Amino acid sequence: MPLIALLTDFGHSDACVGAMKGVILSIAAQAQIHDITHAVPPQDVTAGALLLDDAYSYFPSGTIFVAVVDPGVGSARAAVALQTERFVFIGPDNGLITLAYNAEVERSPKKCSLRVLNNPKFHLPAVSATFHGRDVFAPTAAWLARGISFSAIGDPHPQLAPLANVGEVVISDTQLEAQVLRVDHFGNLITNVKQPQLQQWNAASKPVSVELDYDSGLRSVGPIRKTYSDVPSGDVLAYFGSTARLEIAIASGNLCEKWGRPRKVRIRIS
Amino acid sequence: MPLIALLTDFGHSDACVGAMKGVILSIAAQAQIHDITHAVPPQDVTAGALLLDDAYSYFPSGTIFVAVVDPGVGSARAAVALQTERFVFIGPDNGLITLAYNAEVERSPKKCSLRVLNNPKFHLPAVSATFHGRDVFAPTAAWLARGISFSAIGDPHPQLAPLANVGEVVISDTQLEAQVLRVDHFGNLITNVKQPQLQQWNAASKPVSVELDYDSGLRSVGPIRKTYSDVPSGDVLAYFGSTARLEIAIASGNLCEKWGRPRKVRIRIS
Amino acid sequence: MPLIALLTDFGHSDACVGAMKGVILSIAAQAQIHDITHAVPPQDVTAGALLLDDAYSYFPSGTIFVAVVDPGVGSARAAVALQTERFVFIGPDNGLITLAYNAEVERSPKKCSLRVLNNPKFHLPAVSATFHGRDVFAPTAAWLARGISFSAIGDPHPQLAPLANVGEVVISDTQLEAQVLRVDHFGNLITNVKQPQLQQWNAASKPVSVELDYDSGLRSVGPIRKTYSDVPSGDVLAYFGSTARLEIAIASGNLCEKWGRPRKVRIRIS
Repeated sequence: MPLIALLTDFGHSDACVGAMKGVILSIAAQAQIHDITHAVPPQDVTAGALLLDDAYSYFPSGTIFVAVVDPGVGSARAAVALQTERFVFIGPDNGLITLAYNAEVERSPKKCSLRVLNNPKFHLPAVSATFHGRDVFAPTAAWLARGISFSAIGDPHPQLAPLANVGEVVISDTQLEAQVLRVDHFGNLITNVKQPQLQQWNAASKPVSVELDYDSGLRSVGPIRKTYSDVPSGDVLAYFGSTARLEIAIASGNLCEKWGRPRKVRIRIS
Repeated sequence: MPLIALLTDFGHSDACVGAMKGVILSIAAQAQIHDITHAVPPQDVTAGALLLDDAYSYFPSGTIFVAVVDPGVGSARAAVALQTERFVFIGPDNGLITLAYNAEVERSPKKCSLRVLNNPKFHLPAVSATFHGRDVFAPTAAWLARGISFSAIGDPHPQLAPLANVGEVVISDTQLEAQVLRVDHFGNLITNVKQPQLQQWNAASKPVSVELDYDSGLRSVGPIRKTYSDVPSGDVLAYFGSTARLEIAIASGNLCEKWGRPRKVRIRIS
Repeated sequence: MPLIALLTDFGHSDACVGAMKGVILSIAAQAQIHDITHAVPPQDVTAGALLLDDAYSYFPSGTIFVAVVDPGVGSARAAVALQTERFVFIGPDNGLITLAYNAEVERSPKKCSLRVLNNPKFHLPAVSATFHGRDVFAPTAAWLARGISFSAIGDPHPQLAPLANVGEVVISDTQLEAQVLRVDHFGNLITNVKQPQLQQWNAASKPVSVELDYDSGLRSVGPIRKTYSDVPSGDVLAYFGSTARLEIAIASGNLCEKWGRPRKVRIRIS
């Protein structure tokens, strides 16, 4: 039976995640359920999309992902599922699964199929207006894990809503201007620049320097390093993190607590 | 083998939950263990009872629930187990499993049986004074999952302690006065009024309006809505949440952070 | 297939733990994965070592522990694995698995074997500089769970780095001076004195009294009690916790929030 992996903004202090697991196990008793995270900042669809994108490709083929960051629950936003060559993604059509969709489409465009979850046979008998995670998304995942066909869950869906707020990377010959997309558990700043994009811009591998643009002024953080221990403990550094994004951190410290979140991140060919 | 589902106030920053799982798996290697929540506010038996009540009925028949919010651990309070037609609940006799008990008794009174956990054969060899979750409740759950009979775990227990602090709903012809029982992860206020009670009180479905009573004065939040998107983002609304309780929230915001917790919630026939 | 148990400082708000689980399940689809904790305070190797030591011995024989609190990731610190008579421990060689190592060596010294993880066959194809939890430790655990021999993972490793910062217990005839090692989820102070050490020091079981040494002065907390309910709610007490360490707490309260963390804890024969 395929794995079911969960990502939500439900936190750990309510019973929501527990109820979703109970629903899944009531339908598919043998399901293996794993958590990606339930601590997406409340209603932050962008952070949720990034975190799903960070993790999903490490899971085995066949995994069914249920992603719920859903401020529009109960409104006109569609509940959807995406089947790709390797995976299924289930969630609200608000951009949350769009980064994963883009990556999977790039990998194997003809194998991607979208459906809207409008077959009530695979929902709970009573669907609440505020908790589709429990009443729609979880049972659909469980029925798919039990082997119903993907096309049974509902009608074809034309296309996914785009993901808002991923920021723009502004490029000139000598400068690349990026944005901080989210702050991680260690207070590290995660930007919207990925390593291949920077390499393409700076194909000659000229030396670069990184600057953070705060209301209070610019702060230089030097060249791009490989890992934390490349600078003394307490120093600030830029580096490509484990998801290939440019990150800024304090070695053995919490940068966001110390300096806050900058307006922009600039990389200059120096 | 039946599922074991855990609910505690142990948090995630200690090794308590890990130790409980280790104990269960040492006794019942094939046990499937799932978390409802470990973030019940410390020592808040009322919140724990509400969260257990929110989640338990979504789990498959046969599930064994271990619930531990236990400020009286090591004192005279009994350690108990409840068997119902569908489930087993294990925990301290301090009100924590009382809401679940009430619901299960209403469903099938003759099938409910209570035992006190006084057979040391099913505890760890050394029982600490402060961690019965690990030393008493977890091993009992594991042995029950392995198939020992419910009556083997200890003597019959006459009745459960009541749950304190669930508040009173005060009703008159034109007004219903409720209380906030807990605040959820999103800052939404969860009250002690359930939808059937309100329907019974307002059988004619007359229009109602909801007010929050703060030290600083009354704040009106309008009629009862269906879901967050029924009001503009940032507006406050009342609605019946996914557990059928009346809740108050800010659409796409955190009400408790913004306004705090009111003394009372009033619903008026307007 | 053996269990895999995880302990990290990755928190719950990123996708790190999810990615590690995905990696494990991609290699060993049938692996059972359990969390000890992911909320070790960031980069606090001492707290991580204590929490691993608190929990590991409750797990079934054969369990593979993956422990990651790794401020030196990507530097010269070795990535290691320890095989004991009962368990395998995988993590950075920075003291994190040293308390568990000491306990296992004491139990069965000839059965302990150390290896450095220098066989890239059991790592992910691309190893990042900042996330060996996902790229080195998790895949090694999964391959061991699948049954590769322990010696295949890499060369013998001479010895583990010691654990720094566990503090010293200073003993005189009439006084034992201890330190607070960490603060638990309930605000209880966990010290570096274990029950056998105190019993050896005070073999005659003379009455003792406990004092906390703050910048603002000494605070007496009376004799050593058995459990919270031995004092009225709101009173401070000393007791041996469930891991046999001397702890200081407020009955039904949060001591660390109320009084803060003392410089020292003194136990006097009175």
